[in-house]
Amino acid sequence: MNMTTEAVILGNGDYPSHPYPLNVLRQAPYVVCCDGAADEYIRHGFLPDAIIGDGDSLSSENREKLATIFHQIKDQETNDQTKAVRFLKAQGKRQITIIGGTGKREDHTLGNISLLMDYMQEGLQVRMITDYGIFIPSCDTQRFDAHPGQQVSIFNFGATGLQGEGLAYPLSDFNNWWQGTLNEATGEEFCIHATGKYLVFINF
Amino acid sequence: MNMTTEAVILGNGDYPSHPYPLNVLRQAPYVVCCDGAADEYIRHGFLPDAIIGDGDSLSSENREKLATIFHQIKDQETNDQTKAVRFLKAQGKRQITIIGGTGKREDHTLGNISLLMDYMQEGLQVRMITDYGIFIPSCDTQRFDAHPGQQVSIFNFGATGLQGEGLAYPLSDFNNWWQGTLNEATGEEFCIHATGKYLVFINF
Repeated sequence: MNMTTEAVILGNGDYPSHPYPLNVLRQAPYVVCCDGAADEYIRHGFLPDAIIGDGDSLSSENREKLATIFHQIKDQETNDQTKAVRFLKAQGKRQITIIGGTGKREDHTLGNISLLMDYMQEGLQVRMITDYGIFIPSCDTQRFDAHPGQQVSIFNFGATGLQGEGLAYPLSDFNNWWQGTLNEATGEEFCIHATGKYLVFINF
Repeated sequence: MNMTTEAVILGNGDYPSHPYPLNVLRQAPYVVCCDGAADEYIRHGFLPDAIIGDGDSLSSENREKLATIFHQIKDQETNDQTKAVRFLKAQGKRQITIIGGTGKREDHTLGNISLLMDYMQEGLQVRMITDYGIFIPSCDTQRFDAHPGQQVSIFNFGATGLQGEGLAYPLSDFNNWWQGTLNEATGEEFCIHATGKYLVFINF
């Protein structure tokens, strides 16, 4: 489950309040803010390394003051989160943590979460840390650290042969999002056997 | 898009803050609270008609005081939202609005949203109103009220032949959740042509 984070993307959702994402954000070697998220980040006393977006939510004050690090990318086909991922990919950064990707509009939340699967497809290791847990896009058989009783949800993105080891409830080739929710780890780790893509949410 | 609400389910997510869901909640002819959501509802000065759940998040004070309206349903196979829907269905109530179904844990949010599709399958008309918009589970060709520029997202649940009318960007048979997000209505209504199930989110 551990991963070195080369960069953090701070999204336009809710600013984190849980100590875990706040800590990851504080220790990040490189921080890219999605548009208006930079306003929040600066209000909290930090300075981003880069700001990405179409500039429609960034304050005009910060837009002017931080013109040198603001990379305006107008592209109706992708959202700001994906623009930030591509910006980092172009720099050779592949281990990325997204914070502030959920909260506020639910359609954005759904979109941002599902995009993790696309980033994995592109060979990147992109995780999302929220105020409640971690989303880990996964493929084929994978092992995860946990603690006994830790709550785990699995969302299927076309995987077959899904089987759990070290989980309280059996897995199957779920069709609907809710079917793999509310499982839990029975020990210090669990393993998911599958062929194909699925998304794991581990609650703190 | 208009629908008479026979009952509101107040879920265990974030208590609403937007005037639209607050109004629907205030005018509801019948309110079922999911477990601990009753504590919040009572704290806001209301009294639910029923409380459904396994009782693990309801305060012991309210559990005792409201014992006559507390229906304890222990069932590991469903969540509190679905227990509330089934409770209402048993009373013959079919037009249901869910409020407080999102926010807090993202795996619960995803689960609660996707369950709307299952309720539709059971012949119920269940919508979810959040602080940002309305989720409408839909099937085949349907028409929706809107205002010009209103933001719309479409999530595909296996529909084919998806085509929009009165939307700014073309639809297709999306595979990934994000692909149908960030569309918008061009006029006073829009229409989605399809065969099969999809979920529409209309931003306020």
